[in-house]
Amino acid sequence: MIDAEIIKKFQVPSRYVDGPCFWDDYDLLAKKHTPINLGQGAPDFLPSQHVLDALAQSITCKNGLVHQYTRSYGHPRLVHALAKLFGPMIKQTIDPYKDIAICAGAYGALHSSILAHVEKGDEVIIIEPSFDCYAVMVQAAGGTVRYVPLRLNQIKDDMSSNDWVLNSTELRNAFNHKTKAIILNTPHNPFGKVFSEKELMEIGNLCKKWNVLCISDEVYEWLAYEPKQHIKIASLPGMWERTITIGSAGKTFCITGWKIGWSIGPEHLIKNVQFELSFQPSSVHQEAVAIAVETEIERFDKPDCYFKTLRNELQTKKDHMLRFLKNAGMKPIIPDAGIFVVADWTPLETKIDSSSEKDFYKDFRFTKWFIKNVGILGIPISGFYSETNKKVGENFVRFCFVKKDEKLYMAEEALKKWACRQ
Amino acid sequence: MIDAEIIKKFQVPSRYVDGPCFWDDYDLLAKKHTPINLGQGAPDFLPSQHVLDALAQSITCKNGLVHQYTRSYGHPRLVHALAKLFGPMIKQTIDPYKDIAICAGAYGALHSSILAHVEKGDEVIIIEPSFDCYAVMVQAAGGTVRYVPLRLNQIKDDMSSNDWVLNSTELRNAFNHKTKAIILNTPHNPFGKVFSEKELMEIGNLCKKWNVLCISDEVYEWLAYEPKQHIKIASLPGMWERTITIGSAGKTFCITGWKIGWSIGPEHLIKNVQFELSFQPSSVHQEAVAIAVETEIERFDKPDCYFKTLRNELQTKKDHMLRFLKNAGMKPIIPDAGIFVVADWTPLETKIDSSSEKDFYKDFRFTKWFIKNVGILGIPISGFYSETNKKVGENFVRFCFVKKDEKLYMAEEALKKWACRQ
Repeated sequence: MIDAEIIKKFQVPSRYVDGPCFWDDYDLLAKKHTPINLGQGAPDFLPSQHVLDALAQSITCKNGLVHQYTRSYGHPRLVHALAKLFGPMIKQTIDPYKDIAICAGAYGALHSSILAHVEKGDEVIIIEPSFDCYAVMVQAAGGTVRYVPLRLNQIKDDMSSNDWVLNSTELRNAFNHKTKAIILNTPHNPFGKVFSEKELMEIGNLCKKWNVLCISDEVYEWLAYEPKQHIKIASLPGMWERTITIGSAGKTFCITGWKIGWSIGPEHLIKNVQFELSFQPSSVHQEAVAIAVETEIERFDKPDCYFKTLRNELQTKKDHMLRFLKNAGMKPIIPDAGIFVVADWTPLETKIDSSSEKDFYKDFRFTKWFIKNVGILGIPISGFYSETNKKVGENFVRFCFVKKDEKLYMAEEALKKWACRQ
Repeated sequence: MIDAEIIKKFQVPSRYVDGPCFWDDYDLLAKKHTPINLGQGAPDFLPSQHVLDALAQSITCKNGLVHQYTRSYGHPRLVHALAKLFGPMIKQTIDPYKDIAICAGAYGALHSSILAHVEKGDEVIIIEPSFDCYAVMVQAAGGTVRYVPLRLNQIKDDMSSNDWVLNSTELRNAFNHKTKAIILNTPHNPFGKVFSEKELMEIGNLCKKWNVLCISDEVYEWLAYEPKQHIKIASLPGMWERTITIGSAGKTFCITGWKIGWSIGPEHLIKNVQFELSFQPSSVHQEAVAIAVETEIERFDKPDCYFKTLRNELQTKKDHMLRFLKNAGMKPIIPDAGIFVVADWTPLETKIDSSSEKDFYKDFRFTKWFIKNVGILGIPISGFYSETNKKVGENFVRFCFVKKDEKLYMAEEALKKWACRQ
């Protein structure tokens, strides 16, 4: 028996407490029911051979220094490669040592960028649905979140991620003199929306008007499907000086387990991130990612550039998933980018009985029932909304398609079999 | 020109500001003057072949899952291996899933353990000299630091790390009803002191009396030189339930660049760490460290156990360094453990002229002069003390001996040459 006084005294500080995290629940369900897991946004296949070769090459580096601490704010070879890759895209000369901080994944980069700028009294605008960690990080820094939801601008049969838009009045009203930052996510998780130049200009102008920092999470930057084009908000006039762009080697090269991400921005912002930065990622992986980035820079305009070949590969998987979800009776939102399809599952509502599930929101009940009865794991979209707007997300479920073709076919079959049983 | 309003608004929050960090200065000096670098505590040689083999083995794992996200709180194979290794040493059955959190290096483990327990109004006791990050982390959490210095119990010719002791009254007076935690570091950096059972009992009894958490940084646990024995404070009666033990694969296996560390403790403490924990380290490296740990468990009692062979190798390097520092006229403190020799450099004071250096503390002036004139980089010990006690450290400099023998011989030669020039 542990002394009650110990339990009482050693609680996690209140700045971290924001209700239960639903991801762990779904991990446990995955373990228990071993469904076809289309939940977490990670590939289930081997990374590209050239990325594995880059890793093998960095490991066998003769002097072995790659196995020891590297420069705190980023391995020199990697920051040089990233400066070269992203300079032209952001239309800036990027100083590899002053304008980049390499972090433990995009997650670490978001954390450091938020914690390095937000303090008690600050407000931060989050566009929802959003990755739930944004709000957790803002609150850990002592800040308050103001949510602005994406809203469906018209009900139609073939919804696209583009039909989800910000309401200008709602957006404008979220800004005030307390606003320290806005967190943008383009291409957007979970919808796959690619914010247009017009939309980005609207956000950018409000940032300039209110002197607000823009933290732009662009981890799916290479995965905008043609004809859509991803635009970096940092490349718009007057935005470089107030934008931190977050990127991810994990999402770019299908190596989420290496945990390499970065924050890129002007020196006066990145020096704060470097100040906060407490978690350097692996030197070995930084060297390997540098090699992989160098390779892509060399073949950037060629058809074998991995940024293109991966996108083409995923486009096929996406189209396949759209087809089989539609055939099963769901109404998928066609994503313009990314690795997820969000689908309206409510056309199936009459065919299921999720009353044995005790969750308050019906998408949670649906997804749990779906795991147990159809054998497919998807993620409930209300989990990406704040309490106020969870109702907007309740009709939707997210499926990840960066999975082996076999797994996608298995999901298609499982859905067909279930349909036959109806 | 960046708008002054931007510069003004986007400052790093005050909780992070604690004066300039001196490590960066010494990194820059190392780059500029390319001295024989005995500064940072990282090996300059290749890791052991069996550790490199473990890494190669984990990379070629067929299904490739090792390249993707693993379990948030630690890769299953690694937490199982650590539970098996440390259970007998802490005299507890360790639950791999509940009592361990794998973090981005011991640095990440310290950060998460401190941030997960400290909030505004809390006091944390730090024994100094200490790794400067402890205080930075406590302040980032909103806590206040109370320092208790190790003091030299007698002046003699052959000082040992054991001669640096806590004053019982000072220690006792540091505890009060606001004390949330004490940060212990045994074996100790920079002195190499191994806290005795009696000393640990004294600290433990005060922790129990005041219901205080003990965060015990034991990254040099395998490097206590015979006949000294490292004792885990968590193994003392009544301490498991209030102790988080921090460990490091980087220090254990000479792979500081992999950034794998851990916090081990009872579920009611580790669940807080897991709550805060935001930075998982690489899955690839976790798999490889698991393999390496399994190997050591198998040969734990045999002479080829790496924990022993590394210690033997370092003992030779330590003795060599002690000899050449003494021959050069310094008075080294004989370390009972670890990878550093701290030496009193003041016997050389009459032979140098560091007046061109502008630092306030004379060990900073000495070390900078030493880099430029002797060509050896050591770290000033006042950097490990709070403002109040910096004077205690001013006479000392720290040299790291986990370096290639060639480098140690080069340092010896450089010292001899300098002596000849006098």
